[in-house]
Amino acid sequence: MIGLTNYAGVMESLMNSAEEKQPSSPLTNSWANKQESSKSQKPNGVGGFVLVHAGAGYHSESKAKEYKHVCKRACQRAVDQLKAGALAVEAVAAALVELEDSPFTNAGMGSNLNLSGEIECDASIMDGKSLHFGAVGALSGVKNPVLVANRLLSEAQKGKLSAGRIPPCFLVGRGAHDWAVSHGIPPCPSDKMATKFSLSAYKRNKRKMELAEKMDTGHNQTKKRRQSSENENGSGCLDTVGAVVVDLEGNVAAAVSSGGLAMKHPGRVGQAAHYGCGCWAENASNMNSYSTAVSTSGCGEHLIRTMLARECSAAMQSEDAHQALLEAMQNKFISSPFLASEDRVLGGVIVLRCCRCVEAQPSQNIQGILECKSTHISRLPPGTVPGQSLAIEGGVCRLMGVVE
Amino acid sequence: MIGLTNYAGVMESLMNSAEEKQPSSPLTNSWANKQESSKSQKPNGVGGFVLVHAGAGYHSESKAKEYKHVCKRACQRAVDQLKAGALAVEAVAAALVELEDSPFTNAGMGSNLNLSGEIECDASIMDGKSLHFGAVGALSGVKNPVLVANRLLSEAQKGKLSAGRIPPCFLVGRGAHDWAVSHGIPPCPSDKMATKFSLSAYKRNKRKMELAEKMDTGHNQTKKRRQSSENENGSGCLDTVGAVVVDLEGNVAAAVSSGGLAMKHPGRVGQAAHYGCGCWAENASNMNSYSTAVSTSGCGEHLIRTMLARECSAAMQSEDAHQALLEAMQNKFISSPFLASEDRVLGGVIVLRCCRCVEAQPSQNIQGILECKSTHISRLPPGTVPGQSLAIEGGVCRLMGVVE
Repeated sequence: MIGLTNYAGVMESLMNSAEEKQPSSPLTNSWANKQESSKSQKPNGVGGFVLVHAGAGYHSESKAKEYKHVCKRACQRAVDQLKAGALAVEAVAAALVELEDSPFTNAGMGSNLNLSGEIECDASIMDGKSLHFGAVGALSGVKNPVLVANRLLSEAQKGKLSAGRIPPCFLVGRGAHDWAVSHGIPPCPSDKMATKFSLSAYKRNKRKMELAEKMDTGHNQTKKRRQSSENENGSGCLDTVGAVVVDLEGNVAAAVSSGGLAMKHPGRVGQAAHYGCGCWAENASNMNSYSTAVSTSGCGEHLIRTMLARECSAAMQSEDAHQALLEAMQNKFISSPFLASEDRVLGGVIVLRCCRCVEAQPSQNIQGILECKSTHISRLPPGTVPGQSLAIEGGVCRLMGVVE
Repeated sequence: MIGLTNYAGVMESLMNSAEEKQPSSPLTNSWANKQESSKSQKPNGVGGFVLVHAGAGYHSESKAKEYKHVCKRACQRAVDQLKAGALAVEAVAAALVELEDSPFTNAGMGSNLNLSGEIECDASIMDGKSLHFGAVGALSGVKNPVLVANRLLSEAQKGKLSAGRIPPCFLVGRGAHDWAVSHGIPPCPSDKMATKFSLSAYKRNKRKMELAEKMDTGHNQTKKRRQSSENENGSGCLDTVGAVVVDLEGNVAAAVSSGGLAMKHPGRVGQAAHYGCGCWAENASNMNSYSTAVSTSGCGEHLIRTMLARECSAAMQSEDAHQALLEAMQNKFISSPFLASEDRVLGGVIVLRCCRCVEAQPSQNIQGILECKSTHISRLPPGTVPGQSLAIEGGVCRLMGVVE
């Protein structure tokens, strides 16, 4: 097992002017623990916290700086929201908008192009307080898919539509686009969403595909076609973006957004639109001691079939969440029987959990404990040469100066 | 809690020329247990078994006979496949084709029309042997959506596409249609999929909707709109179809297909296309003592947010599966915190599980035990008058003479 996937993991607390921390091995790095004293925050709160990522995948070193910047900006946007009293779900949407707007990420602007040269995006958001969920799949012509998902979530919370109709939580394709526009979200011409980078990547991928298919001609075509997995252009760029947030009241929320796999078939929907797979958020309740929030990145089909977001959330209810999360990534993902036939499995998650444990340690005046982590994991065929990795691998980074 | 949902539950064994059984209360009916002796079957098999349903919902009494007939025909189709040596996944697809082809079910031909007067179907299929899954959402212009889902499943099992691209497991909208046609599944003009019944229901629903919205004018529109849930035309007809199968080798499979809610927004995708929500199938393994298969019916958004198919499958790993299933329906669905804000919750499932327990009772030469069940459950606002119910409510029916 080799850790190949990459994270631009950034977290920022409203409380701490935190220090930069070097990432450690993705499978051994420890949780960031933050114990909030009752003096420094609102009663029963955990202080507010934002953790964002710009995707697991093979990133270009040349973009590392921009990834760090966009993650920082996304944190800042969410932090601004929290400071203004917004709930976690609004703050996480704000972070995602910033990530989607970056031409460097595979979400919103500059997303991967599909087989037909079009951009079709997936996004979803979950509110741990109401447990509502909104998602869009294969959505074209909207700059910020997460805003449509968020609007679906908030509309569903208002109750039934006219004549007792149940409001949708998941819309796709043209219908999703029309719903968005009819709810005041402006359309964006598709050609404005493609960037110089995404267009040149499309042309390069297309040439590689045509070459691979040409090489197959005259051979046992199907067999050959199926064996050509060494070529990584199709599955190499998996830079889905996501964020997890806890607000000043201790509510959690999570979101995810993706342009999907490069050269995917039109209409393909990945984990970013799939309930339980792309993101998960659940406040503490009678059944759960901890509030948890998760956002995943990696190959959509694998994350769907293992329901990775929900599995990680469930794991984090264990007392030793660090160990439970690593075991979940190993047993429920890398070694999952659902992926036994796959030769290459890649995935990453950012997670946070928090509890209110006044009674647990009354002597310390602890109001809440916040823990968070980013980790990724991969399984590759023997002899595979890993792709180029981004400098900040795994681990958790605290950025100075995001909030004074 | 009142049991209002209805089932046309039919199962047929390859082994037994079984008797008709009167259904009992939906929450108390016992499992059908079938112990296979080693003399009457192939080694290690459980004999093959098919269980189908034509949906939970408010059915018309006048269609009861046709529902029974189509369920019987669907069973027959699957049984024919099993007899010819087909695996469970092929047999379950065959059953679904028959259910989709009936103009009386809300799947394939004769599906509910959406807000724009179009038919958009969801379907999915899961193979317990390979644990692969295929799904289509908001698919127009294909007579048998389950065949597209099944083709996605089988294509994904062949491995990667050219240039290392990962094959999709979930396609929606126009892209799903084009993929189907390019894989040899014939298109079907949309006007041929609507029936006299579905068109008249659309006109009736549209009038009711317009009336409801007109009544809102001049009042507090949003509030009024949200309160008009007493009108049931939108959520009344939930007759999703589904089937679960175990084949002669003991492999399980499950499938589900639906035209979705009447007057749904275009692009809305329900549980029938959603992994873990519409169907689930998982062969026994090191981690699971039992092979389980589940197909759900009810309000898509509620079944998505509770992941009912997967929850029921997990429950059935308990020794007392009957009790565990009822508890799952109660605790993970009706009383689920995910549906706490919903005033009306309806859902039903068909399930089967089987084990190979040669060592458990060697003296009896038991090779396998098959158990299956259909159940449904609902929560309604106080004072609600139940809709008209179909005669065969809940329970399990064995039909004579389907197989001699």
